[in-house]
Amino acid sequence: MNNILRIDMKNLSGIWEGVPEAYQLLGGRALTSRLVSEEVKPSCDALGPENKLVIAPGLLGGTTVTCSGRLSIGAKSPLTGGIKESNAGGTTAIQLAQSGIRALVLEGQAANNELYLLVIDGNEVTFKSAEDYKGMGNYPLAARLRQEYGEKAALITIGSAGELGLPTACIANVDMEGRPSRVNGRGGLGAVMGSKGVKAIIVKNADKQTLKGVDEEKFKESSKKIATAIMENPITKVYSDYGTSSLVDVANNLGCLPTKNFSAGNFDQAEKINGEALKSLILERGGKGKTSHACMPGCIIKCSNIVPDQKGEEIVAPLEYETIGLMGSNCGIGSIDKIAELNYIANDIGIDTIEAGAAIGVAMEAGVISWGDADAVIKTLKGINDGNVLGRLLAFGAVMTGKVLGVSRVPAVKGQSIPAYDPRSLKGLGVTYSISPMGADHTAGTTLRAPVDHSKPEGQVVASKNAQINVTVFDMLGLCMFTMATLINHKELIGDTVSSFTGKNVTFEDLQGISRQTLLREIDFNVNAGIIQNDLPGFFRTESLSPKSTVFDVPQEAMEEIYLELKEGN
Amino acid sequence: MNNILRIDMKNLSGIWEGVPEAYQLLGGRALTSRLVSEEVKPSCDALGPENKLVIAPGLLGGTTVTCSGRLSIGAKSPLTGGIKESNAGGTTAIQLAQSGIRALVLEGQAANNELYLLVIDGNEVTFKSAEDYKGMGNYPLAARLRQEYGEKAALITIGSAGELGLPTACIANVDMEGRPSRVNGRGGLGAVMGSKGVKAIIVKNADKQTLKGVDEEKFKESSKKIATAIMENPITKVYSDYGTSSLVDVANNLGCLPTKNFSAGNFDQAEKINGEALKSLILERGGKGKTSHACMPGCIIKCSNIVPDQKGEEIVAPLEYETIGLMGSNCGIGSIDKIAELNYIANDIGIDTIEAGAAIGVAMEAGVISWGDADAVIKTLKGINDGNVLGRLLAFGAVMTGKVLGVSRVPAVKGQSIPAYDPRSLKGLGVTYSISPMGADHTAGTTLRAPVDHSKPEGQVVASKNAQINVTVFDMLGLCMFTMATLINHKELIGDTVSSFTGKNVTFEDLQGISRQTLLREIDFNVNAGIIQNDLPGFFRTESLSPKSTVFDVPQEAMEEIYLELKEGN
Repeated sequence: MNNILRIDMKNLSGIWEGVPEAYQLLGGRALTSRLVSEEVKPSCDALGPENKLVIAPGLLGGTTVTCSGRLSIGAKSPLTGGIKESNAGGTTAIQLAQSGIRALVLEGQAANNELYLLVIDGNEVTFKSAEDYKGMGNYPLAARLRQEYGEKAALITIGSAGELGLPTACIANVDMEGRPSRVNGRGGLGAVMGSKGVKAIIVKNADKQTLKGVDEEKFKESSKKIATAIMENPITKVYSDYGTSSLVDVANNLGCLPTKNFSAGNFDQAEKINGEALKSLILERGGKGKTSHACMPGCIIKCSNIVPDQKGEEIVAPLEYETIGLMGSNCGIGSIDKIAELNYIANDIGIDTIEAGAAIGVAMEAGVISWGDADAVIKTLKGINDGNVLGRLLAFGAVMTGKVLGVSRVPAVKGQSIPAYDPRSLKGLGVTYSISPMGADHTAGTTLRAPVDHSKPEGQVVASKNAQINVTVFDMLGLCMFTMATLINHKELIGDTVSSFTGKNVTFEDLQGISRQTLLREIDFNVNAGIIQNDLPGFFRTESLSPKSTVFDVPQEAMEEIYLELKEGN
Repeated sequence: MNNILRIDMKNLSGIWEGVPEAYQLLGGRALTSRLVSEEVKPSCDALGPENKLVIAPGLLGGTTVTCSGRLSIGAKSPLTGGIKESNAGGTTAIQLAQSGIRALVLEGQAANNELYLLVIDGNEVTFKSAEDYKGMGNYPLAARLRQEYGEKAALITIGSAGELGLPTACIANVDMEGRPSRVNGRGGLGAVMGSKGVKAIIVKNADKQTLKGVDEEKFKESSKKIATAIMENPITKVYSDYGTSSLVDVANNLGCLPTKNFSAGNFDQAEKINGEALKSLILERGGKGKTSHACMPGCIIKCSNIVPDQKGEEIVAPLEYETIGLMGSNCGIGSIDKIAELNYIANDIGIDTIEAGAAIGVAMEAGVISWGDADAVIKTLKGINDGNVLGRLLAFGAVMTGKVLGVSRVPAVKGQSIPAYDPRSLKGLGVTYSISPMGADHTAGTTLRAPVDHSKPEGQVVASKNAQINVTVFDMLGLCMFTMATLINHKELIGDTVSSFTGKNVTFEDLQGISRQTLLREIDFNVNAGIIQNDLPGFFRTESLSPKSTVFDVPQEAMEEIYLELKEGN
């Protein structure tokens, strides 16, 4: 009941291996990055047989701890060329953990470009031809698989983009109602899954039991304390009421809301797409709309939502801040309906909304689509399946789009586009974008709640370093980032929780040590893969950002000291 | 009168340096590759300030030796990522040589993306703003520069593609009537010139004198013998009568005429675009048309032509076999008029017709343009300047086009597309495509006239190796490839010619030694740049080619033995 399941796609076989002692405390990102760094050659072709796709619940996945069902997926990224971990909610991690799977490793490549469904039912692994599902979008695919394998089955799927090997392809997981909308979005991991010849992984639910701690009572108690602490934090209510869309106003006021390809930090149509607007729209339209919704069993924050159309039918669920920022303001699009529709299309084809939104912004700067022309974007994205040339180009991401269209202002680091916080007015996150082995990624260590003046360079390096180390702890435990605002102040409780679950004596500082080692391994992988960009694109340092007239001015040398400090264990 | 002229584009200065003793016997490709391999970091950004563009006449350039005016240009290629030399006719090499310039080296990068004209007048080097010429095509640019600098000035120019940094951008040289149509086509060297901030190099003609040999009389005598030998060879008359277009029938009969993205080896409309058809069209239309025409002073082969339209006005000059094969049969286009128009457009924008033709074939296979739809191609290529997305993509070459459009059958090696000879039915050239440090390139060592059965694997490795070594000798001397069919049987005469010109005692075998060293340096550069593909794309080994039912079946290990043999001096 504590295994690594290795799937050999060349020979269509599965092998269950016990988790080695050295991996016993690893979960989520710590485990995916450990396996990738130990088993994948940094110089290999990300879409070739030598790459491996590692899928791992967090260490606390499948337990009673609230919000512990995040799923990490790692591999060498076809987008960045470096190591990648991308993290999602949904029901998958819990079911994998409760099936005794600490990591699922897809290896090799199916012969003759065949495409398969991988079905895991207890100890049994079967490979079924996915010929009938070829080219299918995530939504119809999930609906059909649920008919065939039951509504309780966890599904990990790719859309057409993953099959096509497009480097913005994501991996979808179903939520509690079966929507394939909990997405490991970043770094093109869907293309890696497609390159293996896997269209969907189905984890059948056979009355699985919640995992118990080795010290059962103490673990229960810790678990309850965690829930109480989270519920008592006022930020939790903001997430429940507005979801991440509350960040539209926060970012717009800070002057870091990406607007028209990161040429401004606030958007004149922000109030049409902010948290209030979204909440009002949902409440007014009613129907299937919901302002609050949980993406995984046991979540008490419920930051998700369901966006209804004018008839009350669901457009998409959830609509998140990142998508609003990148597909909305960054493209000059000030309509929730249009952004929600774009989100649905991207989910269905299976591409990352952040990367796609950034690429569209670049294409708009090139003049091939007009700012704010949502209908042209909808048509273009829908055309990806039909070989629409611009659509295909966008699906290669912002860097490739900029290269081909001759746009030099491309908001990306290590080949991956910058999420919905302009680093000139949120400088600590700019440090993370620059330094993180993940490329530009807000989930790699946001400083939004750090006690610093976000517009000044002072204190940002330390804030970023701490955020990077701490978020990696949460990622390895499978805890949602949104528990961090609360639990970072309950370090002992986290140590107690892990100790009582594993039966080992573990402190939060021990977990931070694993986090540092994880970061160092990832950095090392990238260096060996030749990925050496550790700074923002030049225009962030030279173009002043309205309305706060900020430029990014944290010195590169100061940022790179993070690497030295990690090595020294600081 | 024997110098390397180094141009520092950052500081806008020129420095004349004597040619070091070790370089005294080097010219053309031997000199460009020597300088690039010694002075350019293999891992550098090909379009960054660390790359250098080296322009070198052959060792015999500027002398009375016929057909010795070929110009080599070398750099790290933005298309292949490896070292590149590309070679052209025209008037430039002769003028550079007669100005005492053995190599012109463009270094650094102009500040603030400024664009300059580089004017060389005797010992004087001046930099003039090219602001007024920005975005200009090669034809209007050359016409205007000739007005300003005189009709005798040699011009080396780039079109808009070079300014835009497109990796198919070529460099144009004027012919004797001032057409900018003698092209260093391959490997995107025009983008390197553009990245330096140079729109045009103007070498003013101030009554330059033909270079004399150290042993003047003996050199004159050798020079005459060379001319006589070439004139006496019957192949010379074929080149004069039909130009390279005579190769359409040769290739069609051999079954190696690239047809519809290398899916067949003969073309059902070949007789509409072959040498006879072209000759008839020119003779019937008259006007400015010419069936034979010299690209450089002193050429006695005159393989060039001028293609007139129905009114007798010039469409393009010359129209070469490679362009007919790639932009014609490879795209299913069976019209000389359309191919000539495409050639003119490509020349004007300044992109390589081979790479563009291969990329169009790939786009046609993807279905985004119909086979044979010349008007759609014309529109697309013209749109490169206006940000036409497909046009921009095509201008990144066949590999990028295939990648973005999802076409796996891409005829390219080391990122550079295969010229107009399908390697399945001309296997020796397939060895050259695979092994040459230049990537797929017919000028790197063709075996078309080698005494082997082109459809069989036997003897191809030796034929290719010899061709690669020998053509590098001709490239270093500045001799046109078309003298090789004759002069390869007069090795002693070549030795005598070089000896009497330089005053050193040099044999043909000595020159072959320099050629081997050049190849080894180039191979080494590529390995250090991470360019390691030494084989054809897989489909050439698996898909049988009609009409001869051939596959490429020279074993890779046998091909790679060339590297060992070069190292051993064989």
